[in-house]
Amino acid sequence: MAEVKSDIEIARAAKKKPILEIGAALGIPPEDLLPYGHDKAKISADFIARQRGKKNGHLILVTAINPTPAGEGKTTTTVGLGDGLNRIGKKAIICIREASLGPCFGVKGGAAGGGYAQVVPMEDMNLHFTGDFHAITSAHNLLAALLDNHIYWGNEQNIDVRRISWRRVMDMNDRALRNIVGSLGGIANGYPRETGFDITVASEVMAILCLSADLRDLEQRLGNIIIGYRRDKSPVFARDIKADGAMAVLLKDAIQPNLVQTLENNPAFVHGGPFANIAHGCNSVIATTTALKLADYVVTEAGFGADLGAEKFFDIKCRKAGLKPDAAVLVATVRAIKMNGGVKKDDLGKENLEALRKGCANLGRHVQNVKKFGVPVIVAINHFTSDTEAEVQAIKDYVATLGAEAVLCRHWAEGSAGIEELAMKVAALAEGGHSQFSPLYPDDMSLFHKIETIAKDIYHASEVIADKSVRDQLRSWEDQGYGHLPICMAKTQYSFSTDPNLRGAPTGHAVPIREVRLAAGAGFIVVITGEIMTMPGLPKVPSSEKIFLNDQGYIEGLF
Amino acid sequence: MAEVKSDIEIARAAKKKPILEIGAALGIPPEDLLPYGHDKAKISADFIARQRGKKNGHLILVTAINPTPAGEGKTTTTVGLGDGLNRIGKKAIICIREASLGPCFGVKGGAAGGGYAQVVPMEDMNLHFTGDFHAITSAHNLLAALLDNHIYWGNEQNIDVRRISWRRVMDMNDRALRNIVGSLGGIANGYPRETGFDITVASEVMAILCLSADLRDLEQRLGNIIIGYRRDKSPVFARDIKADGAMAVLLKDAIQPNLVQTLENNPAFVHGGPFANIAHGCNSVIATTTALKLADYVVTEAGFGADLGAEKFFDIKCRKAGLKPDAAVLVATVRAIKMNGGVKKDDLGKENLEALRKGCANLGRHVQNVKKFGVPVIVAINHFTSDTEAEVQAIKDYVATLGAEAVLCRHWAEGSAGIEELAMKVAALAEGGHSQFSPLYPDDMSLFHKIETIAKDIYHASEVIADKSVRDQLRSWEDQGYGHLPICMAKTQYSFSTDPNLRGAPTGHAVPIREVRLAAGAGFIVVITGEIMTMPGLPKVPSSEKIFLNDQGYIEGLF
Repeated sequence: MAEVKSDIEIARAAKKKPILEIGAALGIPPEDLLPYGHDKAKISADFIARQRGKKNGHLILVTAINPTPAGEGKTTTTVGLGDGLNRIGKKAIICIREASLGPCFGVKGGAAGGGYAQVVPMEDMNLHFTGDFHAITSAHNLLAALLDNHIYWGNEQNIDVRRISWRRVMDMNDRALRNIVGSLGGIANGYPRETGFDITVASEVMAILCLSADLRDLEQRLGNIIIGYRRDKSPVFARDIKADGAMAVLLKDAIQPNLVQTLENNPAFVHGGPFANIAHGCNSVIATTTALKLADYVVTEAGFGADLGAEKFFDIKCRKAGLKPDAAVLVATVRAIKMNGGVKKDDLGKENLEALRKGCANLGRHVQNVKKFGVPVIVAINHFTSDTEAEVQAIKDYVATLGAEAVLCRHWAEGSAGIEELAMKVAALAEGGHSQFSPLYPDDMSLFHKIETIAKDIYHASEVIADKSVRDQLRSWEDQGYGHLPICMAKTQYSFSTDPNLRGAPTGHAVPIREVRLAAGAGFIVVITGEIMTMPGLPKVPSSEKIFLNDQGYIEGLF
Repeated sequence: MAEVKSDIEIARAAKKKPILEIGAALGIPPEDLLPYGHDKAKISADFIARQRGKKNGHLILVTAINPTPAGEGKTTTTVGLGDGLNRIGKKAIICIREASLGPCFGVKGGAAGGGYAQVVPMEDMNLHFTGDFHAITSAHNLLAALLDNHIYWGNEQNIDVRRISWRRVMDMNDRALRNIVGSLGGIANGYPRETGFDITVASEVMAILCLSADLRDLEQRLGNIIIGYRRDKSPVFARDIKADGAMAVLLKDAIQPNLVQTLENNPAFVHGGPFANIAHGCNSVIATTTALKLADYVVTEAGFGADLGAEKFFDIKCRKAGLKPDAAVLVATVRAIKMNGGVKKDDLGKENLEALRKGCANLGRHVQNVKKFGVPVIVAINHFTSDTEAEVQAIKDYVATLGAEAVLCRHWAEGSAGIEELAMKVAALAEGGHSQFSPLYPDDMSLFHKIETIAKDIYHASEVIADKSVRDQLRSWEDQGYGHLPICMAKTQYSFSTDPNLRGAPTGHAVPIREVRLAAGAGFIVVITGEIMTMPGLPKVPSSEKIFLNDQGYIEGLF
């Protein structure tokens, strides 16, 4: 194993094709590709508009068991499967999220995939990329500045300054900005009030950009953002202070999907990156719908495990964008299943069939949950070198008892050659036309009942606990016409329950609701269970301390 | 006059050439041009490094009389002169600053030039452009986050939290962020303290980017930034908390100059944009030095009037970068000179030779000041339709008495055809080899004496007033080894004095120093006279209210 290369070494050795060539293979003419350097490009809104009415390819969701410190490799498998499908002669596009810049300076950056299943250019994707997140930051903070400015000049809208819900954002891990008092320093600076910053990926503008069908829809949704309430508790919208037009102008390039490539020169759309807790955690609708027009297969992923990621992908993104997924791939690893079976991280190298079988309960529940949406599912075992044959076989045997199949994949080590079997089986599953997708709950169910449905059907909880104030708030939103919105659960990703330490497949637990929030622009109700951090901090020794440009001009320490 | 088109109409009708073609005409191979869309590109650091040792073209500074609400058209003349030089067969590149995004949402955006002397694409240049300002914002705020994080985790450097000088920045007009108390909300969020935000163009990182010779120099200067002081008053540098490497990584693309084009398809480098008060107000050194290798003529401008802009261009930028300007063009208009002679804005349409002659004193002093640097100067009268022949002749006659020449220019209405005479005379002046440039004061003069020299020789003040604390501070910096730095005056741009209402050519006034600041990374001492606003606010009716995308996808209301 002396020859194992690091992700960054592999990425640097990539033989990238000019991005215009990657686009040309998809039928995108050069004038509709707006290049950012030679290896990134945005796809023009004009070109996208011209694809309307064309037939869609097959949509494949890649999701996973509950994440553990052992790592599952969901993005790596998404990239690998895309390469694998191209290898077996299918035209496939990968759709994944963009990375946030701020966290890269805290702990080592999240690369896009790993091993021989990566998207490049990795450095750019972890830094400014094509500037989308900066544009979102600007649009978000313009609204905040206009809000305080409105109050400063007389508060014509009678905004209750105690009930302002719009904060500011920054793409940085900066705990000092979580809670601030602003507008200090006297008359010229406004009316002092408490506020704070979230990280950019937590911005509702991010969720809106990712759920918008086009620029017009985006502008409409931006106008729908609730920035606060009046003394009579009526909502004040972004359009009430005439912010929506300028915000849309700031986002006119950002809404265009970004085209990059895999190590094997297959196309990847990397676009948008909403939080997977207080938002829905999927790449943009516009990237996915565009990719579906250009390819036979679109392989996409959702944040966290299937209890959060797949559920939101189905109930928010697919419902709202009218998408019909044809198959789902559930990623698991021997190591992560063993952790779910109670093994500690240091002991993962040892074969432990008993713990593995126990941990399979987590995998099994996710398989059954995905089936509840009418989507056929296949399990991808993302191979690690420490896995034993007996362990792999035990997973396969277990999955067979669920009426599904598990396939061992070696894309990390071998690229597309290592994932051919999965690619063929996914293609067969999708082309078999077995999918009968429908969301978990109908639009017209009451908001509280929707929450209960997710908690009981997906989490296997016995009850949802909510104060009267929460129930009243939900009813009040129903009265205001927001009852049709889907639910966006903010829950720990480590467990089906709200207790991050409860691995496996717990049942009978309670789901306590701490708070509910209306994202009227994005179009969902956020239900918060437990503590959700919307502005991370930096560790004692931030990774930034070791990040620098070496003498060859390569970035060191970012990965 | 029914056919006069607006700047934006003219810009939209521009027949832009592909940016690779503009670059090719300068000898830049396609692989060294990093495109941003089809009409913008960054020039690779590799290419720039390969130009070392090549002969420099002629450097022409465009500066102006003190700005008035009547408008002078300095950028318009810079663009026009570049086009004019190309028209008469000289290979010329224009070097100007980038626009800041935030202020565009307050009042109508500053386009790059006007009429038929513009740089395009105007929309992009007023919005995100190639992301340079966002990168500067990120690098600045990473340092701020690392600083608070350092204190949070134990403050190993013993930073005195009362003496932190590093604030945060945002490219937005947001008065609510001028003064804040941060780190509120309990133990997890740090130690509460007063701080605030400046607008990005006021960041020392901006000044550093614009004064750096290359990426290595940039990293060095970033490390030199003073972020605060210890209890023993010793400075804490950015490198003390290991921030410099990661900041440089964030700026690796931003430091590469941006290539765009004029309406006449001539090359323009638009790069960097430091404040012209607390910073030096010039485009980047790297853009100017690169342009000098690629062209016979480089036409550049400096912020505000010549008392601030030209003085800092000569004493900071040229001194530090080893540049030798060959000629200076001083832009004036009949209207602005009349305002300097006491005419109110509403009366500018009427011929008024008496006021014009009186106002010429302002022009005359700037001409004589520029000559003090050994640089030959020519006056450009930027034509307005209301100018009378007698008024134009009066300026010409006056300038002749100074041993210089004034040339009428009609580039706004006619493009390069309207500025041929100026182009030929500038070329003759530069090629005549008359320039004997030297800065106003030597490096080894004491800091206070440098300030006095600028105040007396350039402003014609009789004295500099400074408290003991200011004088002690200057001496203390001299003791610490900063005595060789040049001075960066922050003074009102509307007058030679510190009183913005004192137009014309006042003498005998006093220059009171309110505060001095050490910009150890940028490499200058900021001397503040009067109130300097480093975070603008928005007006009662911000221009953002009328900014939107029309049905053709064009941006309305931004210009």
